[in-house]
Amino acid sequence: MREIGRLLSRAENGEGATVLGAIATGARAHVVGITGPPGVGKSTLVDKLIEHVRRDGLRVAVLAVDPSSPFSGGAILGDRVRMNRHAADRGVFIRSMAARRALGGLAAATQDAIRVLDAAGYDVIFLETVGVGQNELDVVRAADTVLVLVAPGLGDAIQALKAGVLEIADLFVVNGADRPGADMTMVDLRGMLALGPQHRQTAGWQVPIVDTIATTGQGIERLWAMVRQHRESLDAGGELHVRRRDRIRAHVLDLLFERCRKSLLGALDVDERLRSLLGAASSGRLDPHLAADRIFSQWQPQQVATNSVSAPTRCDRREELTK
Amino acid sequence: MREIGRLLSRAENGEGATVLGAIATGARAHVVGITGPPGVGKSTLVDKLIEHVRRDGLRVAVLAVDPSSPFSGGAILGDRVRMNRHAADRGVFIRSMAARRALGGLAAATQDAIRVLDAAGYDVIFLETVGVGQNELDVVRAADTVLVLVAPGLGDAIQALKAGVLEIADLFVVNGADRPGADMTMVDLRGMLALGPQHRQTAGWQVPIVDTIATTGQGIERLWAMVRQHRESLDAGGELHVRRRDRIRAHVLDLLFERCRKSLLGALDVDERLRSLLGAASSGRLDPHLAADRIFSQWQPQQVATNSVSAPTRCDRREELTK
Repeated sequence: MREIGRLLSRAENGEGATVLGAIATGARAHVVGITGPPGVGKSTLVDKLIEHVRRDGLRVAVLAVDPSSPFSGGAILGDRVRMNRHAADRGVFIRSMAARRALGGLAAATQDAIRVLDAAGYDVIFLETVGVGQNELDVVRAADTVLVLVAPGLGDAIQALKAGVLEIADLFVVNGADRPGADMTMVDLRGMLALGPQHRQTAGWQVPIVDTIATTGQGIERLWAMVRQHRESLDAGGELHVRRRDRIRAHVLDLLFERCRKSLLGALDVDERLRSLLGAASSGRLDPHLAADRIFSQWQPQQVATNSVSAPTRCDRREELTK
Repeated sequence: MREIGRLLSRAENGEGATVLGAIATGARAHVVGITGPPGVGKSTLVDKLIEHVRRDGLRVAVLAVDPSSPFSGGAILGDRVRMNRHAADRGVFIRSMAARRALGGLAAATQDAIRVLDAAGYDVIFLETVGVGQNELDVVRAADTVLVLVAPGLGDAIQALKAGVLEIADLFVVNGADRPGADMTMVDLRGMLALGPQHRQTAGWQVPIVDTIATTGQGIERLWAMVRQHRESLDAGGELHVRRRDRIRAHVLDLLFERCRKSLLGALDVDERLRSLLGAASSGRLDPHLAADRIFSQWQPQQVATNSVSAPTRCDRREELTK
């Protein structure tokens, strides 16, 4: 566990190439993404899912990623609960990551963390995010199977879902099935699914809507069975291979954009000509678009050090507790 | 109005340099950012604020930006309500923008739209976003004054606020002051403000917490007075100048990163060597970090056409209604 923690820290600090060069690229773990608005019960649901994964004799890791917390790197509340429950179980590994600054970098760091956990032999990796914004979608897109959680009785929740979520959801979960409005929410979701385009549809897979009560565990066993079914369906259709290829492609692009960004900021720092163009724009003497054009055309990209490509995340050393 | 609409469309389609070259850069309008979770009542609040702005004899524009809706470009619900109410008032201009793909691009397009509206003589520009994620923060950061709306009685809302929001909030608004838990939310917020670091603090400005009931208009006059007070406080301390300089700087960087991204994607499209490196990574034959290193070092940035730098947004032509 200590070694995995060290590898993860290094991956998160952007020392990806150095650390990961030796890790085999053949992905085996089932990466399950979980997203949904704050307060919908993601952490509780994951906590309950862990029990079923463990009952199946599988090892499980949780990566809780919080892209909306770039400044504090604030801890994700639910983790503490989970930590207490599963602290004694060596088959469970839990880790939080929060964006420090660059968000393309967070997606890349998440990918690296998944590779480390996969290589470490975890069979299931839960990738949990907060919120349903674009950053959250970018992170959760890295999963083989994506669960989108919805709270019952919130018209706003359905409103907030929008087509971006429809596109990536492999399963919808209405959590809090005992609360008022749950039935209506199920009906609304069914209507949305019937109408909306589903770009990431798997052949032979109808996106199910599962109702759960995470606090009591109701519906979780059925949900876990459907998650495994989705994985089998991906495997059978050859879709798993396609998703993973797309995932690596996106990872490389994230790393590339991060290098560009760093190289450009570095150049603006040291190159007097570029800096004065930026200054002229800032003080209103030069149109921002013209300034960008001129800076870009005069910029000579410099290779940035590979072991400091991106350091956008921090990591709570809470996995120390699980040792 | 028709001409402004045309300029905005062109700005949003990325024809920034062409359109904006002629626009004076001296900003005069008071840009007021409004952010907060979906369903908290942002649209209703803005709608009520418009009344007070108009009573002061000022012209007002609303830019409703939805960064979390990259695929559908779904309309922002509240706009339709406002459109109906203010359709006959030529001193009110309302426009929605939604991210189509690139998000750095959306912040840049928002900046350009603000410049157009400023040059068109609007005294107050409300910049409304949905959600409290990083993208929303990036957009709303462009404002002189930032209002963060909070719903009462939601511990989760406070939880979701996190330090990123603390850093940018100039005023907190607890909307729905008649609902249970409003007092507790005010207390929680006061506690957070007392504890948290406030990086963007204005000299002599204590971040106030205002309680409102947007649906009835209660507290809105007081809120509007405080928004104007904040502007005066910014002016007096010289902070307004600093914020606007930083804003243009961020705008230029957004435009630059967008050019990099476009140029890089274009090169990967046409350059066989780069493409095969990406392919080798995607198929697991090359480490993603090594692939990124090699592609970056072999890449020759090409100037991208300035009038098609970014086309990340779509725009509902609803301003046609206000003509």
